[in-house]
Amino acid sequence: MGVSFADIQEAAARIRPHVHRTPVMTSRCADEAGGIQTFFKCENLQRGGAFKIRGAANFLLSIPAADIGRGVVAFSSGNHAQAVDIAAVIRGTKATLVMPYDAPQSKVDATLSYGGQIVRFDRLKEDREAIGRCIAEQTGATLVPPFDHEWIIAGQGTAAVELLEETGPLDALAVCVGGGGLLSGCAVAAKALDPSIRVFGIEPALANDWALSVEAGHPIEIPPPATIADGLRPTRPGKITFPIVQKLVERIILVSEEEIIEAMKFLLLRMKILVEPSGAVAAAAVLKRKLPPEIRSVGVVLSGGNVDWAALKEL
Amino acid sequence: MGVSFADIQEAAARIRPHVHRTPVMTSRCADEAGGIQTFFKCENLQRGGAFKIRGAANFLLSIPAADIGRGVVAFSSGNHAQAVDIAAVIRGTKATLVMPYDAPQSKVDATLSYGGQIVRFDRLKEDREAIGRCIAEQTGATLVPPFDHEWIIAGQGTAAVELLEETGPLDALAVCVGGGGLLSGCAVAAKALDPSIRVFGIEPALANDWALSVEAGHPIEIPPPATIADGLRPTRPGKITFPIVQKLVERIILVSEEEIIEAMKFLLLRMKILVEPSGAVAAAAVLKRKLPPEIRSVGVVLSGGNVDWAALKEL
Repeated sequence: MGVSFADIQEAAARIRPHVHRTPVMTSRCADEAGGIQTFFKCENLQRGGAFKIRGAANFLLSIPAADIGRGVVAFSSGNHAQAVDIAAVIRGTKATLVMPYDAPQSKVDATLSYGGQIVRFDRLKEDREAIGRCIAEQTGATLVPPFDHEWIIAGQGTAAVELLEETGPLDALAVCVGGGGLLSGCAVAAKALDPSIRVFGIEPALANDWALSVEAGHPIEIPPPATIADGLRPTRPGKITFPIVQKLVERIILVSEEEIIEAMKFLLLRMKILVEPSGAVAAAAVLKRKLPPEIRSVGVVLSGGNVDWAALKEL
Repeated sequence: MGVSFADIQEAAARIRPHVHRTPVMTSRCADEAGGIQTFFKCENLQRGGAFKIRGAANFLLSIPAADIGRGVVAFSSGNHAQAVDIAAVIRGTKATLVMPYDAPQSKVDATLSYGGQIVRFDRLKEDREAIGRCIAEQTGATLVPPFDHEWIIAGQGTAAVELLEETGPLDALAVCVGGGGLLSGCAVAAKALDPSIRVFGIEPALANDWALSVEAGHPIEIPPPATIADGLRPTRPGKITFPIVQKLVERIILVSEEEIIEAMKFLLLRMKILVEPSGAVAAAAVLKRKLPPEIRSVGVVLSGGNVDWAALKEL
């Protein structure tokens, strides 16, 4: 149990040939808006449009050869699905994705274009986790969890390694938190590289399960949140991710829906890069000056960029 | 008269401390769509949001010390205005921008934020060139032309130098053409670095003054074009840019308004970067496979990224 820096370094070596080393962007406008020197790790420019390929590739490349031939299965209609799909091509196996009937057609098309097989289900009547587990049991496919697994966490942590290799020491790191895979992995990496760095988790105020859980000292479940940041809708912290965050993350910071949209627009119109709402959450906290004022430099992970035209128009 | 590669190298050294060395992006999706290995020079990530700062900075830094104190003047409500404004700060002088009363407020605000002074005029009744020249004569300010000047052309050519330094030899270069400053500067640079490179100018079919002029063998004026690519609306080739293009550019390629919008959406949704319509014109030609089929690799200059929210929504 738990994830060490060595796990993350091994993950980095394992996935290096298959994922992009995404650029780190800076912007005078952003520095002025946030009052902090800010370094943006552009995981919106990652393969599959999000950081998720890091964990998925590490996971699939860690599956024993004896098992990989039976394929993998994941339940997701979001970035994790696409990542598992790409990772299946990398590992030379087949992916089955369990998606609701009402998943956006663009996600379905993207999945099919990589060769993944889709199993549809009725979101109101059926339990996708149960369907996923059933497929795994019947076919011998390996279930790829979206966040709560050491291999996934170690993979996501490679984003912070690359960021800090490029920037050198920073006062702080700001990372969004949904299931906690990215935040816990990045926290382990950052603290190993520099024990004095301060790590902050950012989540929508509408999806405040992490803030409540950290305050309570144990994972707390919330009702399905209505936040626009669809990647951050898991309703409770993971069993593995929670204790890591509890130990290494200084504080969970909340941002409003308006602040998320404003940050998305800032990144788009001023910095010319497209991030999805979840991808703008950590940036929103920095641009709105929610970090302690003595912090002079911060790394921000822009976690993904998958927005479709219709969603963009609605903003 | 004319611009040499030495002029461009001097410009590069002169402006280096003041402009961004913008990234060169690649994308598997784009390579597949266009059927060519494509390298995008991201001038949408340049200071002021467009390549224009290269020429403006080179121009202002070339003005003799005896003259610079009287300031500079430019007539533009677009990217050239913002570039002159930033260049004035770099050179430590004052810029006056002649803009129509109906210029978008965002452009006016951006100009004022850099400290530029704005003179408004009535687009239907007054001639902004005449106003600009009048201000220059009365105040002794130096007029900064948008494209048809050796210093401007040499500055714009530095974009191609950076691109080719990063990629090594390419089969072709695709550059949008409005007044011809960017295209002529890039053509001089590219041909000097590699005489076998093939250079293509791309313009909207609705603003086909260059295609007509090259065919006729002399500059031809067209009525004000209604293209969405507002940066490419000059109605005739420049006196200095035309002969350079005539000599070094293989062909002018036309793209439709739909192709421009489609390329913008591709760059935004697939590659996660925002370009303005003019900035997508060269990419549209490549994505729509309008280059000769034997070309295997191409550099594309994404010339700018200044779009406001309202314009984006209208697409």
